[in-house]
Amino acid sequence: MSALPPAYRCGILTLSDKGARGEREDTSGPRIREMLRTAGYEVAEYQLLPDRQELIEQALKTWADEQRLDLIVTTGGTGVSPGDRTPEATRAVIEREVPGLAEAMRMASLRKTVQAVWSRGIAGIRQECLILNLPGSRKAAEENLEAVLPALAHGLEKLKGSTSDCGRMG
Amino acid sequence: MSALPPAYRCGILTLSDKGARGEREDTSGPRIREMLRTAGYEVAEYQLLPDRQELIEQALKTWADEQRLDLIVTTGGTGVSPGDRTPEATRAVIEREVPGLAEAMRMASLRKTVQAVWSRGIAGIRQECLILNLPGSRKAAEENLEAVLPALAHGLEKLKGSTSDCGRMG
Amino acid sequence: MSALPPAYRCGILTLSDKGARGEREDTSGPRIREMLRTAGYEVAEYQLLPDRQELIEQALKTWADEQRLDLIVTTGGTGVSPGDRTPEATRAVIEREVPGLAEAMRMASLRKTVQAVWSRGIAGIRQECLILNLPGSRKAAEENLEAVLPALAHGLEKLKGSTSDCGRMG
Repeated sequence: MSALPPAYRCGILTLSDKGARGEREDTSGPRIREMLRTAGYEVAEYQLLPDRQELIEQALKTWADEQRLDLIVTTGGTGVSPGDRTPEATRAVIEREVPGLAEAMRMASLRKTVQAVWSRGIAGIRQECLILNLPGSRKAAEENLEAVLPALAHGLEKLKGSTSDCGRMG
Repeated sequence: MSALPPAYRCGILTLSDKGARGEREDTSGPRIREMLRTAGYEVAEYQLLPDRQELIEQALKTWADEQRLDLIVTTGGTGVSPGDRTPEATRAVIEREVPGLAEAMRMASLRKTVQAVWSRGIAGIRQECLILNLPGSRKAAEENLEAVLPALAHGLEKLKGSTSDCGRMG
Repeated sequence: MSALPPAYRCGILTLSDKGARGEREDTSGPRIREMLRTAGYEVAEYQLLPDRQELIEQALKTWADEQRLDLIVTTGGTGVSPGDRTPEATRAVIEREVPGLAEAMRMASLRKTVQAVWSRGIAGIRQECLILNLPGSRKAAEENLEAVLPALAHGLEKLKGSTSDCGRMG
């Protein structure tokens, strides 16, 4: 009797002051959940937090270290408004940055609008967990995730120490 | 009687040892001033400094903290010559990096010449001031600024805490 | 009697645990050597080391500071496998980053495969030595080096303090 490999376990963290106060519905988080599930991921956690750096850092650490999630996708807090600190919080908890993910996402968005330059999201690794910052708007988050979703499974496999070669990676 | 909104106030900082010694005319600074004015910005400050990191840091801090400029555009000192330290000076004074601005500028230059890889400019935010590094040559500075100028006003507005949505930002 | 200018002196550092244990042949290092020689560079050093950050840092420092190499090209250790630490080792020893080199290499690879997002290589300057991280696979290393090789000589010249203008650099 053979079993399918277990799906990667993900968490979705939405950063929005208005959302956390109940003044705005989170439409990005549910859309990301839908995209991840369709791609075969298990969405184990979902949380909506205000844009506060220490809260974001704490949530990322708990999900990576205690919940042992494979992937954390954040949405929101990546812009240049005074409170936007998601990239700073992410940088504070990752051990190894993966600049290509952020570059590829911004490059995809830049093809649509020059305003994509303002998205300051980063991506990186904490232990065996990949953390990926998406913009806050549903449309931009969707476009960004679409740009890298086809790559994620292979990277997550390598992250776990798989020694299979794809022949093209670093 | 209605009034136009006040224009964003900018400073242009040219970094050039030869320029500061009076051995080379600064053609980049005036060209940047012309482009910014045409786009509706007020150019409140212009200075030409030698390529010394501590002088650059001091000028950026004074313009951001005391003059309360909205935008500082530097030109020069972004290459790989021994004295080029503008990106290092900029990084030392910004609080939040905006990597997409530098990526978009280099991408635009790379379409013209592979030598664009040597431009090490960065962009970032100190308080409510955006600092943008352009290359030193007039032609490259012009190309780089052209690549992001259409995006600037919207980012500067968000930087000030505007909560208007553009629906595409982070 | 005129003499040709001396060729830039390079070192090639291959990072591979399997390679260092003799369990896998290094095909990337020899291919890089071939490409550099064809482009007129002198390959003065070649070494194969396991993926250990302190060993990499030590090798880079020795080659830059004592051997006075002009260019060090690394291959391997740039991915997201648990041991991949070449970018971290490189960042620890460089004084000035050259982000455009890494961006241009990943952009070139991204045109071939979205898996290029996982290549975390960086590039930067230590004193007068340029250090460039390439991916570990022969094919990806070749593609990456091809993307920036035409730019290298000009940057290396500027690095040495040449004041010739190319009219396009930072």
